[in-house]
Amino acid sequence: MSGKFIVIEGLEGAGKSTAIASIVSHLQAKGIRAETVREPGGTPLAEALRELVKQEWQENVSSMTELLLMYASRVQLVDNVIKPALQKNRWVIGDRHDLSSQAYQGGGRQLGAETLKSLKQLTLGDFEPDLTLYLDIDAQQGLQRARGRGELDRFEQEDLAFFERTRLRYRQLAATNPRVVTIDAGQAMQQVHQDILRAIEENLFT
Amino acid sequence: MSGKFIVIEGLEGAGKSTAIASIVSHLQAKGIRAETVREPGGTPLAEALRELVKQEWQENVSSMTELLLMYASRVQLVDNVIKPALQKNRWVIGDRHDLSSQAYQGGGRQLGAETLKSLKQLTLGDFEPDLTLYLDIDAQQGLQRARGRGELDRFEQEDLAFFERTRLRYRQLAATNPRVVTIDAGQAMQQVHQDILRAIEENLFT
Repeated sequence: MSGKFIVIEGLEGAGKSTAIASIVSHLQAKGIRAETVREPGGTPLAEALRELVKQEWQENVSSMTELLLMYASRVQLVDNVIKPALQKNRWVIGDRHDLSSQAYQGGGRQLGAETLKSLKQLTLGDFEPDLTLYLDIDAQQGLQRARGRGELDRFEQEDLAFFERTRLRYRQLAATNPRVVTIDAGQAMQQVHQDILRAIEENLFT
Repeated sequence: MSGKFIVIEGLEGAGKSTAIASIVSHLQAKGIRAETVREPGGTPLAEALRELVKQEWQENVSSMTELLLMYASRVQLVDNVIKPALQKNRWVIGDRHDLSSQAYQGGGRQLGAETLKSLKQLTLGDFEPDLTLYLDIDAQQGLQRARGRGELDRFEQEDLAFFERTRLRYRQLAATNPRVVTIDAGQAMQQVHQDILRAIEENLFT
């Protein structure tokens, strides 16, 4: 069976890490070893960019600068890790990918859907995940969970309105893209877990 | 008089630093204080990007990643330094700007003129220098000068063909853009100096 690229998306605190762990173990039970990657990051240069884009600066970080850094990291990861793995028929599970930029920079930062679409096409062409699971959670609830984890990065310090805009864009994008499945991440954990595995089964194994 | 943005462009070893020094002093004699900036770099975040993009990595750096980092640095500099200075009617002299990406990544890395044009429009819109002086030098001659300076960065280690392609693109772009003046940087230094100051006078003071 050929390799697949599965992406988990959602706001901070939506439960992405738990979701990834359960997908990895579900695939393992089927004899499939999946590689996990995260964005921004996943290669030495991309991890260095992750640090730069998340840290606080004594200057305003332009939304466009932020967007370009996200794509620089993404292109590096796709070219050096994801595509080579898929070409060897290996499975890759991504903690965030292109949908994050569309939601956070396009929606949250208000750079707009058209700009995002053009940049995606220019940098990645038609490359996209086989399946994206969007873990939908109330912005306030997600933030509360995320902020319980310790020191806040440049994104986590944004106000609620930023995350509301990001969530709205996520939901719009998920509703119109057939390769994106929305999971209600506000449910009890066991139910979220079941919904995730059902989506994997229905979309990649039937 | 309102502020102007002047850019000096050219291959490594073309004599950009000397050119900038003579323009600064020429303007000073007219009572104009000019701020100098360099690309990539010029703000704390942009300087951090400069380091990342010039250093050696234990992985291939995708040409598209490199291009996106150049624009991330450029947007940050334009938004935080160049535009604010121009709005205060100050003069800015740039050591490289957009033409460098068009020549190095578009020509040298062969990403193509169309991709470069689209990315420029997407990120900077219609913003451009009032005057660009392109110091044209034979690629081999420029490299010899640059390599005499010590340790080589990721660009300076490229082969001659890379710099030939970059120079060719520079020359094509300079020939078709009325705001770019080509200076023959292979001439005796005194002549280069005179040509530069004449270009400044003719294009910005008459």
